[in-house]
Amino acid sequence: MDLSKVIRDIPDFPVKGIQFKDITPVLQNIDAFKHSLDELENIILDVDFDVIVAIESRGFLFGAPLADRLDKPLSVLRKPGKLPAAVVQKTYKLEYGEATLEIHNDALKPGDKCLLVDDLLATGGTVAASAALCEELGGVVTGCLFLVELCDLPGSEALSNYPIFSLVKYGKDI
Amino acid sequence: MDLSKVIRDIPDFPVKGIQFKDITPVLQNIDAFKHSLDELENIILDVDFDVIVAIESRGFLFGAPLADRLDKPLSVLRKPGKLPAAVVQKTYKLEYGEATLEIHNDALKPGDKCLLVDDLLATGGTVAASAALCEELGGVVTGCLFLVELCDLPGSEALSNYPIFSLVKYGKDI
Repeated sequence: MDLSKVIRDIPDFPVKGIQFKDITPVLQNIDAFKHSLDELENIILDVDFDVIVAIESRGFLFGAPLADRLDKPLSVLRKPGKLPAAVVQKTYKLEYGEATLEIHNDALKPGDKCLLVDDLLATGGTVAASAALCEELGGVVTGCLFLVELCDLPGSEALSNYPIFSLVKYGKDI
Repeated sequence: MDLSKVIRDIPDFPVKGIQFKDITPVLQNIDAFKHSLDELENIILDVDFDVIVAIESRGFLFGAPLADRLDKPLSVLRKPGKLPAAVVQKTYKLEYGEATLEIHNDALKPGDKCLLVDDLLATGGTVAASAALCEELGGVVTGCLFLVELCDLPGSEALSNYPIFSLVKYGKDI
């Protein structure tokens, strides 16, 4: 199944000039959703990790079923003010604008090997901040997993310290 | 497994006087997470539905793995400005404050039987708005599924038109 034919392009969202990759058609097509989960499992077969760290909110849609399938604990990175217990937080630049993420202090144990999960890798700012938060808690990021990678943007450079795994790649040279 | 012993109470979050039920310890304990998914499956065995409609964001954490387990398409209700295609939206009152939800116009087909999924039922405002949005698209809500129900709050009254299923109930008479 070619997932790139299920994902749809929405022009000028969230701001003019951005061609948004909408993954909701993947979710709404259960064969496509299960195929995407199968393939996400396959591309991380050799990754050694203790915990899945899913990034709010679309990362939850893939991180939670992968935790269930792979029998791994699930920790969550959330937007500010959402996590009720003590947190560490980080503010970072986005492709469009700025954002902050938080993680509970007890979301990881020191030495935990972390697989970060999000739907899409663009400039990598969100995931670099996520990795830094995991490391602040003593975690070790052993992989970053995405359904979609926009290869014309410098995401892989921003995450050059980490192994990156992505299923559907878009870009000039693909 | 007694999930109520895994869920933790956080006093005065997000505002003074609210005792917040933090479900992140369930996610971080894979046995508890899988047990919660098993039991969520069990309590909806007799519910006839075509599509799971998960409410952002914690509803994604349970709705997505249930869609995967039960081979059902997944549609998402999101906060304003997050869904890139044409939407319908609804603003509603919360236990503390006010909020708006949106759903893509093409998230449901007319006649689709919908199972709404969220982590927690409190006053029911979020889910009543979610059900109204599903109905606006021609959907029929055949069930509302929650990990946690706060039985001292009037959630079940707000959703009296719909079958409610919840796993862990808190309240004076429980």
